[in-house]
Amino acid sequence: MEKLLRYAAGSSGPEVMKQTAGLPMETEWVPLMSLPGRILAEDVYCGNPVPGFHRSTVDGYAVQSRDTGGASESLPVFLKVIGEVEMGKAAEMTVGPGECVYVPTGGMVPAGADAMVMVEYCEGFGTPLHGSGLNVSEQNGSGLNGGRQAGAVAAGGGAGAGTAPACLQMAVSCSVSAGANLVMAGDDMAEGQRVLQRGRRIRPADLGVLSAIGRTEALVYQPWKLSILSTGDEIVAPDRVPGPGQVRDVNTYGLYGQALEYGFQVVRMEVVCDDPAELEAKAASAMADSDLVVLSGGSSQGKKDATAEIIKNLASSGVLTHGLAVKPGKPTILGFDEVQRTALIGLPGHPVAALILFREIVGGLWERLTGMSETEKKPAMAGIITVNLAASPGRKTLQLVTVDDSSCDPMTGLPLVTPVWGKSGLIHTMSQADGYIVMEVNDEGVQKGTQVEVHLL
Amino acid sequence: MEKLLRYAAGSSGPEVMKQTAGLPMETEWVPLMSLPGRILAEDVYCGNPVPGFHRSTVDGYAVQSRDTGGASESLPVFLKVIGEVEMGKAAEMTVGPGECVYVPTGGMVPAGADAMVMVEYCEGFGTPLHGSGLNVSEQNGSGLNGGRQAGAVAAGGGAGAGTAPACLQMAVSCSVSAGANLVMAGDDMAEGQRVLQRGRRIRPADLGVLSAIGRTEALVYQPWKLSILSTGDEIVAPDRVPGPGQVRDVNTYGLYGQALEYGFQVVRMEVVCDDPAELEAKAASAMADSDLVVLSGGSSQGKKDATAEIIKNLASSGVLTHGLAVKPGKPTILGFDEVQRTALIGLPGHPVAALILFREIVGGLWERLTGMSETEKKPAMAGIITVNLAASPGRKTLQLVTVDDSSCDPMTGLPLVTPVWGKSGLIHTMSQADGYIVMEVNDEGVQKGTQVEVHLL
Repeated sequence: MEKLLRYAAGSSGPEVMKQTAGLPMETEWVPLMSLPGRILAEDVYCGNPVPGFHRSTVDGYAVQSRDTGGASESLPVFLKVIGEVEMGKAAEMTVGPGECVYVPTGGMVPAGADAMVMVEYCEGFGTPLHGSGLNVSEQNGSGLNGGRQAGAVAAGGGAGAGTAPACLQMAVSCSVSAGANLVMAGDDMAEGQRVLQRGRRIRPADLGVLSAIGRTEALVYQPWKLSILSTGDEIVAPDRVPGPGQVRDVNTYGLYGQALEYGFQVVRMEVVCDDPAELEAKAASAMADSDLVVLSGGSSQGKKDATAEIIKNLASSGVLTHGLAVKPGKPTILGFDEVQRTALIGLPGHPVAALILFREIVGGLWERLTGMSETEKKPAMAGIITVNLAASPGRKTLQLVTVDDSSCDPMTGLPLVTPVWGKSGLIHTMSQADGYIVMEVNDEGVQKGTQVEVHLL
Repeated sequence: MEKLLRYAAGSSGPEVMKQTAGLPMETEWVPLMSLPGRILAEDVYCGNPVPGFHRSTVDGYAVQSRDTGGASESLPVFLKVIGEVEMGKAAEMTVGPGECVYVPTGGMVPAGADAMVMVEYCEGFGTPLHGSGLNVSEQNGSGLNGGRQAGAVAAGGGAGAGTAPACLQMAVSCSVSAGANLVMAGDDMAEGQRVLQRGRRIRPADLGVLSAIGRTEALVYQPWKLSILSTGDEIVAPDRVPGPGQVRDVNTYGLYGQALEYGFQVVRMEVVCDDPAELEAKAASAMADSDLVVLSGGSSQGKKDATAEIIKNLASSGVLTHGLAVKPGKPTILGFDEVQRTALIGLPGHPVAALILFREIVGGLWERLTGMSETEKKPAMAGIITVNLAASPGRKTLQLVTVDDSSCDPMTGLPLVTPVWGKSGLIHTMSQADGYIVMEVNDEGVQKGTQVEVHLL
């Protein structure tokens, strides 16, 4: 939206903002497995602390850290093994002074203990009370025998968690401080902590966060419903052979792909012939089930006038801005209908302009209204421009570029950025580009060797 | 794969490469609308040239450029208007010396003409032969009256394309060179030109390229089928309340999300208790319908040994590499079964390690085997590290970081990169990070203020 305002500055900028803020931002509850890529419509808080208990991060022995003070390989301290904790079970014993308990990685650290000593620094002595203990350990894979000193630690826990301590002394050859080798309850996520923020695009790790706090669904924004109406007597479907003067449809499919990048739902794609009355009828009917109706028109003056007239007729607020100070993309027309809360957007026929302007305007609105933070938006990267580029006076200029990762600028180490030249309206030009750079209205251009920000396509 | 080799260097690197190259890379034909994000398995060539004819990029008059030599506002040249081209129709007339033809933006430039003069530089004089011509122009919106001089150009074409020239003189006040304001046939895509390359991740503009050349489907790689088996007696489902010593499942969902980022198909997700026999049985049955079986085990030594044993039993080639020189993620185990052509991957239980290693190893294999170019891979960006970071001796080190877009390094203009510290295995740590940096085995670390490459999450 800021983007939109920048383009429309001087024309009806504030009006555009006021009006399009009325676009519907409905929300829905979506199950965990369908969340990737969706945009959170709620702040997510942690209920109970994660983990819910002090958890060991190593295979080893839970101890009172002060017992290990000064312990070394040449001068170990001897602790009494009072038991073993099983994975997924409560540690029911309490570690007292001079005592220790075996805990596998991920296991619950018993009360009384404030640190873990890795099994590598422990060597056992003595005879276990129960010979059966060893077998139990092997069967449940709890790892007592997995350490380097496996042979030496010739004892296991009893039949259950926290029961039947093996009668064994443990020589500990390492001093640990309080909190060593364990995660405290709530260390990952504390009770009441906000763990994910509204406007967040759900990433893989976020699924882990949600599952960890027991959220099997989350409130996300419903994708906008879009209709794409392309006009042109010269346009034929991709599966047809164009006759003389005809071309296959490019914009409908390009815009469809662009819409999918934002997760929008394309409810209608249609090519309409150059009959203003028919286009108006199709647009009116599309408004009934769409949040946005995109009219991808030709770039001839007659078509531009027809699109403006249609938007004027259909939008209760009329045409909000007619023409943006941007190159390419000047003939972009915006309208908003407050009754049906539908935005009408007339994009230029020029495919490169249509696709980039869709991103900048429709994508920009979406990012603004979902409250997306900078890091959630489409990635941009820094590079060094290899030529001088002139800006268009009085217009924001968008320039397609390629990014050459293989040859870096020797000074900055940044990749080299080269403009993709191409005559107006060539879709292959855009397909070859990695991104585009933006020269602001008041920029004189960019100088060869300076740093530019590339918006990746 | 290079990544994999770098990790496994010194152990069974070449063996890993040889074996896993046997992973199935099946292809399938997919219709245009389902292509976004898929990876091309073919080079795509253009059949007939696009556009198929010389096409005007402006509203104006098709001329022989030499006729306009020296034309200016004070000394225009006068050309005879011999007709008008309609959008989507053949231009059947031929422009001779001293003649011109109206062509709207996107219309076909007639034979004989080699340039277009924008309507802004044209002013008409004289009386049309057919009064009806004007109405035809208005009805079909072809734009004759759309120019600045609309009032002056008080005439239109005849009833059809290339017929009934208006008897009109046009004053042209601008000199154009050959090729001005038009796109030549094949300028966008030439006959036989390779327009998209194998390994390409289909982007919005590519849909436009495919539709423009009449491709309604393309050959892409079938996504790998994945099974994710997480083991742990301590793991409960997200909808359950964990008891003492229990935690909710994190890795299954995180890995599921990570798999979706590569477009993989997750055919099975299961939590298996710590019983090696049961895990082996589940893994064996998963191999039947999966290209990869991911075993997300605990990090205790007993579990690691059990996973290695299972992979050894199930994979005809046995364990290819047991342990990678990477931190976190050392206990990663790889095996390959040539009979079923299934890879078996034992990932560490540590969720951060599991998710990043999945990306680096499974994602890396996918990028390698699809022939993906650097620009198609997950984006990386440059930044300036704000603290000194030590590498782990003899191990490649992966460090989670945040990227601060709002405060740039004053010297380079690059965003500031700050490590996300966190105890081992905290999923929220990863969720808070924007990406990670890699310190190679032989790096001593990175110094505060130097440039780093951030792999975005």
